[in-house]
Amino acid sequence: MFKINDNYLKLPGSYLFSTVAKKVKAYKEANPDREVISLGIGDVTQPLAPAVIDALHKSVDEMAHAETFRGYAPDLGYEFLRNTIADKDFKALGCDISADEIFVSDGAKSDSGNIGDIFSIDNKIAVCDPVYPVYVDTNAMSGRTGEYNPDTQKWSDVIYMPCTAATNFAPEIPKETPDIIYLCFPNNPTGSTITKPQLQEWVDYANKVGAVIIYDAAYEAFIEEADVPHSIYECTGARTCAIELRSFSKKAGFTGVRLGYTVIPKDLKCGDVSLHSLWARRHGTKFNGAPYIVQRAGEAVYSEAGAKQTMEQIAYYKKNAKTMMEALAGYGYSVSGGVNSPYVWLKTPDNMTSWDFFDLLLEKANVVGTPGSGFGPSGEGYFRLTAFGSYENTLKALDRIKAL
Amino acid sequence: MFKINDNYLKLPGSYLFSTVAKKVKAYKEANPDREVISLGIGDVTQPLAPAVIDALHKSVDEMAHAETFRGYAPDLGYEFLRNTIADKDFKALGCDISADEIFVSDGAKSDSGNIGDIFSIDNKIAVCDPVYPVYVDTNAMSGRTGEYNPDTQKWSDVIYMPCTAATNFAPEIPKETPDIIYLCFPNNPTGSTITKPQLQEWVDYANKVGAVIIYDAAYEAFIEEADVPHSIYECTGARTCAIELRSFSKKAGFTGVRLGYTVIPKDLKCGDVSLHSLWARRHGTKFNGAPYIVQRAGEAVYSEAGAKQTMEQIAYYKKNAKTMMEALAGYGYSVSGGVNSPYVWLKTPDNMTSWDFFDLLLEKANVVGTPGSGFGPSGEGYFRLTAFGSYENTLKALDRIKAL
Repeated sequence: MFKINDNYLKLPGSYLFSTVAKKVKAYKEANPDREVISLGIGDVTQPLAPAVIDALHKSVDEMAHAETFRGYAPDLGYEFLRNTIADKDFKALGCDISADEIFVSDGAKSDSGNIGDIFSIDNKIAVCDPVYPVYVDTNAMSGRTGEYNPDTQKWSDVIYMPCTAATNFAPEIPKETPDIIYLCFPNNPTGSTITKPQLQEWVDYANKVGAVIIYDAAYEAFIEEADVPHSIYECTGARTCAIELRSFSKKAGFTGVRLGYTVIPKDLKCGDVSLHSLWARRHGTKFNGAPYIVQRAGEAVYSEAGAKQTMEQIAYYKKNAKTMMEALAGYGYSVSGGVNSPYVWLKTPDNMTSWDFFDLLLEKANVVGTPGSGFGPSGEGYFRLTAFGSYENTLKALDRIKAL
Repeated sequence: MFKINDNYLKLPGSYLFSTVAKKVKAYKEANPDREVISLGIGDVTQPLAPAVIDALHKSVDEMAHAETFRGYAPDLGYEFLRNTIADKDFKALGCDISADEIFVSDGAKSDSGNIGDIFSIDNKIAVCDPVYPVYVDTNAMSGRTGEYNPDTQKWSDVIYMPCTAATNFAPEIPKETPDIIYLCFPNNPTGSTITKPQLQEWVDYANKVGAVIIYDAAYEAFIEEADVPHSIYECTGARTCAIELRSFSKKAGFTGVRLGYTVIPKDLKCGDVSLHSLWARRHGTKFNGAPYIVQRAGEAVYSEAGAKQTMEQIAYYKKNAKTMMEALAGYGYSVSGGVNSPYVWLKTPDNMTSWDFFDLLLEKANVVGTPGSGFGPSGEGYFRLTAFGSYENTLKALDRIKAL
């Protein structure tokens, strides 16, 4: 008789955003006349940039003719895209990353979930608390996190690094030594950042204790402050300890287009074994490449026109974030994030729980946000709002929150 | 110090098609004047159907305007596609499969590799020999296959079901009872099929012993004989024992577009736990949906024009297969497959090894095929040729093989 992977049964509830989606769907069905504004899931609303649209049409036309048709993509991505990424995202910053250290994928969510495949189950992970749920849930699915305690909302074998107002929403080096450290900056969900010297401390620590850092830089495009690093490879020594995940979802509004990439430097080794070769094997065996037309769309993001247009999109969302920060502070809310990030991290009023505030906002203001406790126990009493709505809806949502 | 997943180190050599690609690349670099014809990897060469191209352009245009832009897709796929699939691929055949039992993905390779995630490591798998390497390699990566013996080219904890000329290239019920049975019909690599009564025997057996069948029907669109089932759900009782994988790669030339789906009936359970809920959790946590434009392209495959055009493509490849079968038999080769399948399974001449024949064909005829031994020990002495080339190249390749 076949047996299932019991680790799945240890997972508490369902995936956070699925739960939010179900609650919103139920509310809308019960209240079809209400206009619900979503500032919840980190999904973009602006259309794709014209340069991206042009690249899509052009590559679709290539697929219509035998002479220019493309079948299976190279395992690790087309060279035109990998070369462009290496030049524009790394060499331009002075980072020593070559095109063949870049693995093109269908997005950072898949990569951040799948990267655990190449590590032993015996590794101990450290995560920020609160944290993007995919890191912990996928480790739990593979049996790396021990047992879940519903009272503490913590897994027995995970090192939690609290990110609270007391630490300026940044993690501190943990007392217990981890094997794998997940870091995400600009942070999801808190919108916080750390400086390059602070990140250098993590790189030095990882190299010292033999840990690997999985660095999620999905929100890199939102960075505006000069002392905030865009890539972990700006730090000395990162080539021997860090994997970096990147996404086109937030950089260019590709949430429905699906494109991302993972960087594994060839110097990152466990004994004689390079993690690059393991990930290449996984990628080549369990994945068949991102669509050709999508890789061409990704390339267009880096063209002169594409870069200008996607920067304008990001400026649009950043204006929303700034507007939200100022308005919410004016209403008396305690807010952070929102500067190098599309996320505003809000302290719930009157010590309400995160889910109570979610329900209040949904039912009284018809605004959807994400409960902080969904991201981990230290997120309790907080709430995440995103700047990805339209400007008009953002203003409308703020007016409704003001009226609460 | 972090530790890697040691199971990766047990894998012999690299992924079959990567090895083939490297050999071909090296040959082309050393012989830039030679025109190499690939009948190797199962990659299509005909352009996308006009109806699919139209759907892509139309949906790209939708992505260009805020009113019609689509961000994250629903976790399990858009309803427009899932409903279409349920109607056209299942209800039309009389199969009891509903839209919410269909999980849209980026392709059957990913799904066949990832499906193992929801099963315990302790399950014993049974595979055909020869077999599509992804099934075995991905189970090996997760530690389910024991140790690899380079002499026998077998894993200690895998049940191999030889598919040889003696069994008409079909598997027989194994002596040892498996927990998970991988079946692929029309078969990759041999091109063989089994009848509906034969498949019913497997379904009955799986239900009797409590095994689950992972049924890969990626080549379903090539079926022309009336007694060959298109779906395992044509068999009574399959809802309690079978998962089916489908691909748009061969059905509609989507190898570079990336679309597939997996069916998990809600009746398929281990005790109280439905595999449907486990896969939904995995899909929602480690995947973010196929691109909107690609799902629209998939929908167009089922339109009146799309169905007609993709049928014509398949007829084109089938004409190649028929031509190959007749010509190769005429040259004195022993061939099978090639009727309900794009694959011709060839016995190597003079008892040559599969790789020796690969080298001969590459160097003397400049034709690329796939060595049968790459698919498993019982594939030794065989060779796979695909019908996915152009008709002109297929004729040219046949002439070169004739001249050997």
